[in-house]
Amino acid sequence: MKPLKEMTKEELLAMKETLSAEYKEAQAKGLKLDMSRGKPGISQLDLSLPMLDAINSSSDMRTVLGNDTRNYGDLDGIGECRYLMADMMSVKKDNVVVCGNSSLNIMYDTISRSMTHGVNGSTPWCKLDKVKFLCPVPGYDRHFKITEYFGIEMINIPLYEDGPDMDMVEKYVNSDEAVKGIWCVPKYSNPTGISYSDEVVRRFANLKPAAEDFRIFWDNAYCIHHLYEDTQDEILNILEECEKAGNPNMVYIFASTSKISFPGSGVSAIATSLENIEFIKSQMTVQTIGHDKINQLRHVKFFKNLEGLQAHMKKHADLMRPKFEAVLEVLEEELEGLEIGSWIKPRGGYFISFNAMEGCAKAIVAKCKEAGVVMTGAGATYPYGKDPQDSNIRIAPSFPTPEEMRDAAKLFTLCVKMVSVDKILETM
Amino acid sequence: MKPLKEMTKEELLAMKETLSAEYKEAQAKGLKLDMSRGKPGISQLDLSLPMLDAINSSSDMRTVLGNDTRNYGDLDGIGECRYLMADMMSVKKDNVVVCGNSSLNIMYDTISRSMTHGVNGSTPWCKLDKVKFLCPVPGYDRHFKITEYFGIEMINIPLYEDGPDMDMVEKYVNSDEAVKGIWCVPKYSNPTGISYSDEVVRRFANLKPAAEDFRIFWDNAYCIHHLYEDTQDEILNILEECEKAGNPNMVYIFASTSKISFPGSGVSAIATSLENIEFIKSQMTVQTIGHDKINQLRHVKFFKNLEGLQAHMKKHADLMRPKFEAVLEVLEEELEGLEIGSWIKPRGGYFISFNAMEGCAKAIVAKCKEAGVVMTGAGATYPYGKDPQDSNIRIAPSFPTPEEMRDAAKLFTLCVKMVSVDKILETM
Repeated sequence: MKPLKEMTKEELLAMKETLSAEYKEAQAKGLKLDMSRGKPGISQLDLSLPMLDAINSSSDMRTVLGNDTRNYGDLDGIGECRYLMADMMSVKKDNVVVCGNSSLNIMYDTISRSMTHGVNGSTPWCKLDKVKFLCPVPGYDRHFKITEYFGIEMINIPLYEDGPDMDMVEKYVNSDEAVKGIWCVPKYSNPTGISYSDEVVRRFANLKPAAEDFRIFWDNAYCIHHLYEDTQDEILNILEECEKAGNPNMVYIFASTSKISFPGSGVSAIATSLENIEFIKSQMTVQTIGHDKINQLRHVKFFKNLEGLQAHMKKHADLMRPKFEAVLEVLEEELEGLEIGSWIKPRGGYFISFNAMEGCAKAIVAKCKEAGVVMTGAGATYPYGKDPQDSNIRIAPSFPTPEEMRDAAKLFTLCVKMVSVDKILETM
Repeated sequence: MKPLKEMTKEELLAMKETLSAEYKEAQAKGLKLDMSRGKPGISQLDLSLPMLDAINSSSDMRTVLGNDTRNYGDLDGIGECRYLMADMMSVKKDNVVVCGNSSLNIMYDTISRSMTHGVNGSTPWCKLDKVKFLCPVPGYDRHFKITEYFGIEMINIPLYEDGPDMDMVEKYVNSDEAVKGIWCVPKYSNPTGISYSDEVVRRFANLKPAAEDFRIFWDNAYCIHHLYEDTQDEILNILEECEKAGNPNMVYIFASTSKISFPGSGVSAIATSLENIEFIKSQMTVQTIGHDKINQLRHVKFFKNLEGLQAHMKKHADLMRPKFEAVLEVLEEELEGLEIGSWIKPRGGYFISFNAMEGCAKAIVAKCKEAGVVMTGAGATYPYGKDPQDSNIRIAPSFPTPEEMRDAAKLFTLCVKMVSVDKILETM
């Protein structure tokens, strides 16, 4: 096919008619598919079912050190689970605090604590006139919701194929004392699927923040969530790089097993410098007596070690790959050469990010919905839900089956074409 | 025995000598007992072990409504668990949000949210010059730690056998706009074991707060934690009373199964008005995608309903009663008539509260420690850890065995006598 923009008005009108007919047919099928959230599919959840047998009424409920996981204690998590999460996060055990079921909750608490109590002794952010965060875009809507909730001003930073625009990051961080943080998903980024290059990680570690309480919020949500065995992304260890650069306290790393074991019933962790951990624990000990240690033990008994986690993630990959490939195939089949959209083929993570022609994303998502396919709301991948180009659409292929994904992707590309044809016709 | 104060100096000196000899003997025994925290005993934890079999890899993991508990969703808890917690808390399901493993964490989050976002639209507390909380004393140290952490000024309110001094509560709440809350453990209070009378509850419900964002923090931690079958305390339903009094939003009720199933691996809940819940959820939806629903389902499958919970608590009571009675017997045997201490015989909860002669609590706790018995730090039951009378000591009899409790209580009364004799001698 030739690019739509090179078509004549007559060609476009003819195409519009064909597409409308196809759309009516599609609507008649009564599709009911949800590609809006990164929810694991049912067969993925089934993979972790045996974990529910890892602990039963006759299990030894003590930790290696002999602590009873059934009782109060071990505020920073049981030792063996700290080791497990540390290995997964490529850090040392002492740098890890294992928390509850949600890394998002740790991030929220981290911001909330900074608002009321500052960072390691700095002025509480709620006492400042202005607090700003950098937001590589497109990014994760739930990150942006946290900073929005606390009235933190968000600044868009373009995200390229090797990471955020570091010139811009350096400019802001190194000159503006109001810039207190940046949201990062460094590996298999949500939603574009890209991973940060070594150079980008090093430039992060070597920032010279104007604010002493500037922190990098490094949400390594997809650290072992590869799609392929042979081509896997690896990123540099940010904690080590920050230490080397003389910025040991500058980064908080977050991760969880939400998309390894069970969303909502996994374990989460924060990894950071010992100084940061001390400050965090001075708050955490007021907030709770401790997290769910039985569930921590359950995870350790089931996964055993990093190799166990990795073997488990291979099974996830086998289930996810066909879904990603179904979408990518349809995108290529249907849109190749039309020049009305672009996308990146991710090697891991949970999303495919699609960039439509400017001003088309909302209309595409609305059209999909009318035919029974729910996408993440257009704009959600930007702070305040506002995509200045109205272009980015996040596709979450994990929940439906590969067959359903094909149908959904077909409908999606149909909607992309319809909206793009209309857009081009408008300007003629 | 006659009151120590009526003894002659010679009698006291002779007694001192005998006591010192006994203390040396006790030290030689090498006791190692912990009565510092309200930790359930091992046999109590064993009671809930079958819960770990309630869900396994072949269980139906769906809720009554068909939602998969293994996946994201149900922010306010799965329906059946909301029903269970509502029944336990004597409220309606719609008034309940089931959260994570810790009611303390909900209380912390509630204060934290009020600091940054106010209450249902009021000015964030962090923007105010002064925020005050009323603290019935003696009370729960972890409550006081939360308000202390947020820089909230705490005001001591005497706690009597029927509840807090309500004249004082009314005076402060109805006249001072800076008073934003009060900590209450209305049933089997921590640490005195008393329960609020109907009149006290009604006076709470009929407060006319000067501050629109004043809230009662009603920590009903021991709502079904009776020690006896025949003599059980019942308290009026504060949510209903507040509604009747035209103050529907004035109370937050907290509870958990930490001392029913497993501390750290239970479920917690907040119960309050629908308007309050709406405001809370507007924050909670930013903080987390949801709590551990598999654990919620596990609790429902094991306890089934309120009757199941109550039957389970009878088994707890059978284990706890001998421990409480061991302490109370020793207190009577050793201290009756000496007029150097007073205590209340609780009908439920986790603690016995002992009031020593003024200025003696710290010395008693220190003396116990030197002989291997760890008590809650003296002063811990007061804001800022400061008991103005240095008199109150919290005894937590739940963790040791009844035999150990007898030994520990003997040592405790020995220390009480030694310190009291010294105190009286000092003034002679």
